[in-house]
Amino acid sequence: MNIILLGSGRVATQLGQALHQAGASFLQVYSPTQAHAAKLATKLDCESISDVSKLRLDADLYILSVNDDALPTLSQQLSLTDRLVVHTSGSTPMSILEHSSNKIGVLYPLQTFSHEKEVDFSVVPLIIESNNPESLNSLKDLAAKLSTKVLELDSAQRLILHVAAVFACNFSNHMYNIAQALLASRQLDFDLIRPLIAETAAKVQLNLPSEVQTGPAIRKDELTIQKHLDSLKDQPQLQEIYRLLSQSIVNLR
Amino acid sequence: MNIILLGSGRVATQLGQALHQAGASFLQVYSPTQAHAAKLATKLDCESISDVSKLRLDADLYILSVNDDALPTLSQQLSLTDRLVVHTSGSTPMSILEHSSNKIGVLYPLQTFSHEKEVDFSVVPLIIESNNPESLNSLKDLAAKLSTKVLELDSAQRLILHVAAVFACNFSNHMYNIAQALLASRQLDFDLIRPLIAETAAKVQLNLPSEVQTGPAIRKDELTIQKHLDSLKDQPQLQEIYRLLSQSIVNLR
Repeated sequence: MNIILLGSGRVATQLGQALHQAGASFLQVYSPTQAHAAKLATKLDCESISDVSKLRLDADLYILSVNDDALPTLSQQLSLTDRLVVHTSGSTPMSILEHSSNKIGVLYPLQTFSHEKEVDFSVVPLIIESNNPESLNSLKDLAAKLSTKVLELDSAQRLILHVAAVFACNFSNHMYNIAQALLASRQLDFDLIRPLIAETAAKVQLNLPSEVQTGPAIRKDELTIQKHLDSLKDQPQLQEIYRLLSQSIVNLR
Repeated sequence: MNIILLGSGRVATQLGQALHQAGASFLQVYSPTQAHAAKLATKLDCESISDVSKLRLDADLYILSVNDDALPTLSQQLSLTDRLVVHTSGSTPMSILEHSSNKIGVLYPLQTFSHEKEVDFSVVPLIIESNNPESLNSLKDLAAKLSTKVLELDSAQRLILHVAAVFACNFSNHMYNIAQALLASRQLDFDLIRPLIAETAAKVQLNLPSEVQTGPAIRKDELTIQKHLDSLKDQPQLQEIYRLLSQSIVNLR
């Protein structure tokens, strides 16, 4: 299977490298920034292009792995008739690709990617979708080379999964970030709280979060809640977040 | 050092066991529920009592490890003159113990504890405080037997650390819980999102959260944010949380 990769960000880089290591062959990497395209193309042993008009039309699979807000424009620029075109977005309907080709699909890796840290794809859930059974099978085979967790979902289910991922990942990281800011305000090192973060995430690997919720809100410990709110009196937005999340913990109980 | 432990919950159990394994000897375990006291006393090779009036007065150290809201009443019941009395609470000032003894202090383990899962204390930050240098040294020596991370903080600093811990642990777990509820609403398994949670926590072990924030809010990707809010239209509280946290991510940037 010959692949052309459109995009050079975190997801494109990590997915491209994982596919390359799994034996897939790449023809081209496209990025509007030539330097970015060239950097990733070197890793994937293929040509780099920064002009969509230079896109080869003979690949088996085109993977659009760009920011969600760049997808509509990029997919409009493609006209690949019966070549399989997929995107890697969690929140974008497959239908956005309808103008690009007759054969379309999605390959969404449910993971957070860094520029530096390589991700072990074997445990990353890969969510696939296609508008035809043959392409779905191709995607299934390709995904199975990377991960033991391949799941077919439609665009509506994938959107909910993506929202869940925003809470579990982006918003959790923001909670860590607030902790970082609070510690910094008292010249305390973030390192103090790293074991707590690791243990909190480790607990839900074996339990459900609903079973292991701790803290003043779930205990309805109003005294402690009030002390915490008082200590945040100079930071009204943090107070608001504290109040809303404490209320939500009680409601979800 | 002879210790009496007042409390039988998660913190009391895990701290008691860790101290016992480190060679500390326990005289008594107190809990208002005799069965709870007896269970932990068996593990710590000591007597169990459920009546404060039966408390021995000759221990070197009394550890009050009960819920924050039970601390004021319990400490009022004690009259131990010159014996060292400490609590294990993050948010409670040391001064709450002033009526219990002349020698008071705090031994706060910054970690989340389960009933089932044993915690590796060697990496748990232990926050200590005392009203006299001699007791502070005793606490320092005791804490150093359990952990390589012993830190002296005053009550005000400890409170901020505790608030930070609520964000990093309790509120992060609530984010996981919301993800669990969203997935369940579409018959999707929580297992799908476990690798994402593990990776999100792993990333901040080497980086600062502020350096690795991802997601639509930090990208100011309004299109995706709107799709997510639309998908939560039947759940106004989740919409409110989504909006507030997205705004906070932008503000903290």
